Amino acid sequence: MSDAAPDWIAADWGTTHLRLWAMRGCEVRERRASDQGMGKLTPARFGPVLEAAVAGWGAAPVVTCGMVGSRQGWAEAPYTPAPCAAEPRLVRVPDHAARPVYIARGVRQDSPPDVMRGEETQIAGLRLREPGFEGTVCLPGTHTKWVALHAGRIARFRSCMTGEIYDLLAHRSVLRHTLEGGCEDMDAFDRGCAEALADPAAAYGALFALRARALLGDLAPGAAASRLSGLLIGWELAATRDLWHRQPVALIGSPVLSPLYARALAACGIAARRHDAEDVTLAGLYAARQTIGAEA
Amino acid sequence: MSDAAPDWIAADWGTTHLRLWAMRGCEVRERRASDQGMGKLTPARFGPVLEAAVAGWGAAPVVTCGMVGSRQGWAEAPYTPAPCAAEPRLVRVPDHAARPVYIARGVRQDSPPDVMRGEETQIAGLRLREPGFEGTVCLPGTHTKWVALHAGRIARFRSCMTGEIYDLLAHRSVLRHTLEGGCEDMDAFDRGCAEALADPAAAYGALFALRARALLGDLAPGAAASRLSGLLIGWELAATRDLWHRQPVALIGSPVLSPLYARALAACGIAARRHDAEDVTLAGLYAARQTIGAEA
Repeated sequence: MSDAAPDWIAADWGTTHLRLWAMRGCEVRERRASDQGMGKLTPARFGPVLEAAVAGWGAAPVVTCGMVGSRQGWAEAPYTPAPCAAEPRLVRVPDHAARPVYIARGVRQDSPPDVMRGEETQIAGLRLREPGFEGTVCLPGTHTKWVALHAGRIARFRSCMTGEIYDLLAHRSVLRHTLEGGCEDMDAFDRGCAEALADPAAAYGALFALRARALLGDLAPGAAASRLSGLLIGWELAATRDLWHRQPVALIGSPVLSPLYARALAACGIAARRHDAEDVTLAGLYAARQTIGAEA
Repeated sequence: MSDAAPDWIAADWGTTHLRLWAMRGCEVRERRASDQGMGKLTPARFGPVLEAAVAGWGAAPVVTCGMVGSRQGWAEAPYTPAPCAAEPRLVRVPDHAARPVYIARGVRQDSPPDVMRGEETQIAGLRLREPGFEGTVCLPGTHTKWVALHAGRIARFRSCMTGEIYDLLAHRSVLRHTLEGGCEDMDAFDRGCAEALADPAAAYGALFALRARALLGDLAPGAAASRLSGLLIGWELAATRDLWHRQPVALIGSPVLSPLYARALAACGIAARRHDAEDVTLAGLYAARQTIGAEA
């Protein structure tokens, strides 16, 4: 830690993790991370866990986004109904004496039903980085979000469970005997992606075929993982075509997943611009901090 | 057990179970079942487990189908390549002194790659029950099979992982918080099925929407399970349309799954005929027994 205490603390508090940044203005002074996600905490534990995690950082206020604001989290930060401004909105956690703690509200869509918590903050950060951006933001992850931004507003969005389905198929299904390693055979990825995009229904039958091909000696284990990844991302692109077709696309996500989505989109003629997830999260939390005093 | 010893023993030895029938001709004298599936046995254990399971049934030969014949099973019964006669073919287990043991060969398809082990025996049994049947056999299960039968031959087939994907989504994914009970809300099932069949790509986005609808109070837990079941079966029907469209369809499967497939097919104008799985399994093993002496 440098000499001056932070003037605020940024936090991303998800289901499985807690990430903290000691900030002065928009400058990061120190990073901390733990596995104390909201998924393993009872409501009474959030306050003590936070105070232990920020020990030595003074009494600066905390601004956080993520599942910490869900009904099962620390304090419910109600969803803002979409369409809505792509700007952060905070609620203050009641009854935490040690310091002010603010949580970003998620966004909901009623028809078709969908929700996000955390991505809205990254989108607010993206708008700081690319103020004029119009188009679709793709946020790959466990539940990938596709978000249409128009005139500074979240117009509509859709979530696909691709990351979670991949993990379940790769590690818990019969395909676990067949898959090895990550997505490294890019030819197999490309073919799977193109097939699923061209005929999403047929891709359903292609899943068990991965197992059959391995049994019949027709597919190397490394190629199987790549092909499964391609099939699922191609399927997702087929399910979200109305959101990315002929649109500028910005990608916010992990260094593992983002290149795969960028590659799949490039095959469809879309040159997606990639943004670093931490950078836009911090930018969004910084934007959120500017609203303190205006929270609902 | 009745007075006379069985003259043969039928067995269905799958990954998770071992089912045994003491037979005289085509008449069942006694049933036994255990959880000693091939998935939990090392190769050396198969013989002792079988002998313990048939204790008191004399020295009658055993005819079995299922994963016991896989490479990881007791003795590999090679796949017969499709197209092939829809008739049983056996291999004899070497080095089992206590009694003759025969295992039915599975069927493989090279393009597109697919495999079955056990279903080929049920199909042979179906042909005894409906000798003139021409059309498609649907065998719902963990990995549902759709098998085109023409002129007494398995022409082609396709496996869909619907059962396994349902279990993973319902019990291991974020949807586990949302689903309760089985498929009881038939309106929700019908709507999910029709939606996925009409637009299989869009159904991909409809999965996370189940969670969102529950969070937004828009869907009862019972309806969610029914809708998920409908979405996945509708998706499967879209992926197999070339196999069932304008075809006679026979259904062989569990009392839980078969009515759902029958309902989904009925909505498409297909009146599927249902067959009892045990009945056709035993008929198929009976047909297989007639071939003893001709095994490859």
